[in-house]
Amino acid sequence: MKLALRVAERSRGKCSPNPFVGTVIVKNGKIIAEGSTQPYGYDHSEQVALKAAGKEAKGATMYVSLEPCCHHGKTPPCTDAIIKAGIKRVVIGIEDPNPKVAGKGIKALEEAGITVQSGYFTKEINEQLEYYLCYMKRKRPFVIWKTALTLDGKYAASDGSSRWISNPASRKYVHKLRSQVEVVLAGIKSVSHDDAMLNVRGLRQIKQPLRLVLDPYMDVSLSSKLVTSAKDFPTMIMFHSSDPDKEQALQKAKVQLRRIPGHKDELDLIAVMDALYEMKLYSVLLETGNRLSEAFWRAKLVDKCLLFYGNQILGGDKGILAHYDRQNIDRAIPLHKIKVKRLLDNVLISGYPLL
Amino acid sequence: MKLALRVAERSRGKCSPNPFVGTVIVKNGKIIAEGSTQPYGYDHSEQVALKAAGKEAKGATMYVSLEPCCHHGKTPPCTDAIIKAGIKRVVIGIEDPNPKVAGKGIKALEEAGITVQSGYFTKEINEQLEYYLCYMKRKRPFVIWKTALTLDGKYAASDGSSRWISNPASRKYVHKLRSQVEVVLAGIKSVSHDDAMLNVRGLRQIKQPLRLVLDPYMDVSLSSKLVTSAKDFPTMIMFHSSDPDKEQALQKAKVQLRRIPGHKDELDLIAVMDALYEMKLYSVLLETGNRLSEAFWRAKLVDKCLLFYGNQILGGDKGILAHYDRQNIDRAIPLHKIKVKRLLDNVLISGYPLL
Repeated sequence: MKLALRVAERSRGKCSPNPFVGTVIVKNGKIIAEGSTQPYGYDHSEQVALKAAGKEAKGATMYVSLEPCCHHGKTPPCTDAIIKAGIKRVVIGIEDPNPKVAGKGIKALEEAGITVQSGYFTKEINEQLEYYLCYMKRKRPFVIWKTALTLDGKYAASDGSSRWISNPASRKYVHKLRSQVEVVLAGIKSVSHDDAMLNVRGLRQIKQPLRLVLDPYMDVSLSSKLVTSAKDFPTMIMFHSSDPDKEQALQKAKVQLRRIPGHKDELDLIAVMDALYEMKLYSVLLETGNRLSEAFWRAKLVDKCLLFYGNQILGGDKGILAHYDRQNIDRAIPLHKIKVKRLLDNVLISGYPLL
Repeated sequence: MKLALRVAERSRGKCSPNPFVGTVIVKNGKIIAEGSTQPYGYDHSEQVALKAAGKEAKGATMYVSLEPCCHHGKTPPCTDAIIKAGIKRVVIGIEDPNPKVAGKGIKALEEAGITVQSGYFTKEINEQLEYYLCYMKRKRPFVIWKTALTLDGKYAASDGSSRWISNPASRKYVHKLRSQVEVVLAGIKSVSHDDAMLNVRGLRQIKQPLRLVLDPYMDVSLSSKLVTSAKDFPTMIMFHSSDPDKEQALQKAKVQLRRIPGHKDELDLIAVMDALYEMKLYSVLLETGNRLSEAFWRAKLVDKCLLFYGNQILGGDKGILAHYDRQNIDRAIPLHKIKVKRLLDNVLISGYPLL
């Protein structure tokens, strides 16, 4: 099963909206095949492994990190293929919360006389598939909040300058992160301020995320890098007010537009999440400035935090989340499962807030 | 020499005002003796190793991390002992900047016909003996600034509450730090606010540092834990204005008093450093609140930073160093030699500011 989890990693960020799953087939104590989920519309991990095993699959044991599907989607049900191949025993990591599966996969296998065991490495798989599981269980994408701070906790100097708080190693890491989520979200203020592209750069074999800008009054500049590159990289503007000419010009530039309820400078973030859920997008990386970050925290829409610390002391009054004020230390939001990663002279601390 | 450095660590924080030094004696490719500096007034590392080697020292090679002394202090010159023991070759890490030694130790050995080589592991030893070397070269103690922050860079909640930002593992680490410095310095405000003891607790075999409180108007409460424990732990108040009754009461409580030039709420920090230099104290751990920390930064009196990060998001406006404002990102103070240490769910990031 541990190997199945490792095999699954090969497909991370490459097969959405399918979850990335790993399968290993074992016979007589030997690994005879493995497989990971292929891009959408192609084989699931079970199919990949079964094809690799061929006739040898008969009588073998299959280890698979997520319950096999039993419904017709873009591909036929995996349970049928498993039964047909003559697999004798299936060991499943976790059950699939997708209502189309949700135990029915296990049932189909058992009814065919296959021994099924489930519930292994659940902690690891719950973390590995956190985007997908959040989407299925909470009916909204998994939201990752990223911020770059100096060691004394400033997001910018008092004159507003902030390039570069983080080093090239951190920035490269951010591009990798972008390639592993479906949506990179920013507010119009930071996009305008930095003329930000929000795409993935400097990596081979990349899947570009949807670049989503919350832009209540459709203020985005037609000459911005974001708009002029929309023909090459998927781009969406969410807004509540617009003028038809600007709408037309943006559509011509291949920018997708989506009206969302909102008030003044803010869009309704729950409505933003609902729209993304409907679009079957499992994960959002927030590259939001201070104000929009505060709004996401207030809406309790942060599932994971990534805090990049530069190596400087900067001073001044530009501390983050000033208006997301917990007031007393006992009301501070604890982060769980803290991880620490060094990126040369930068440090990345990540964790899961208990909101 | 690497072993000599490791041996030296045994005496860290235990032999001041002598620097902690390690000596290893090698003969015919075998280690025959080692020694580290004993408490003040007792043997230096060379003497310890020579006594352990006995007659075997004749014709042997000595590795010592710092140049041997050649003057009469509390103990006779090490150079005499080395010559008398018949050591043939001495390999020295770095020269001792103490003007009483400063190359004269090497000269004395060479004049006695001993082969001397110097300049090994200089980077490591310069860091190992950073307190002592700063004291000798810059004529002031080495200043370590410590702060505890939430992940979003707050030193307290907006209502002022801050217990506990850091976890027990971090606090234990702080007690170890206190035991390795000569002075723990705090301002009267944080001492009063927390009724702080500033002593070393929970460790075996401890050397208590001098607890130094900057208290311009001698506001310290006679019933504070600091004052009532002054008979047990060395305690000093630095002030610029006082009243004679309070002075007398504090002296009776065994608090040392020292008048320092100052103005209003601030003491002249250069004068504070001069006083500590005169008292032969090599290292100061700043456990200062936000305002006094800013004053030390402004005075460029921070040699090393220790930033402890708790695992919370707290929000609010209590970011540190607001009034030590570098204004532009290009004027940020970079920290060098960044080190990262995990303390359960806390993270310690340390580094050396280039002020």
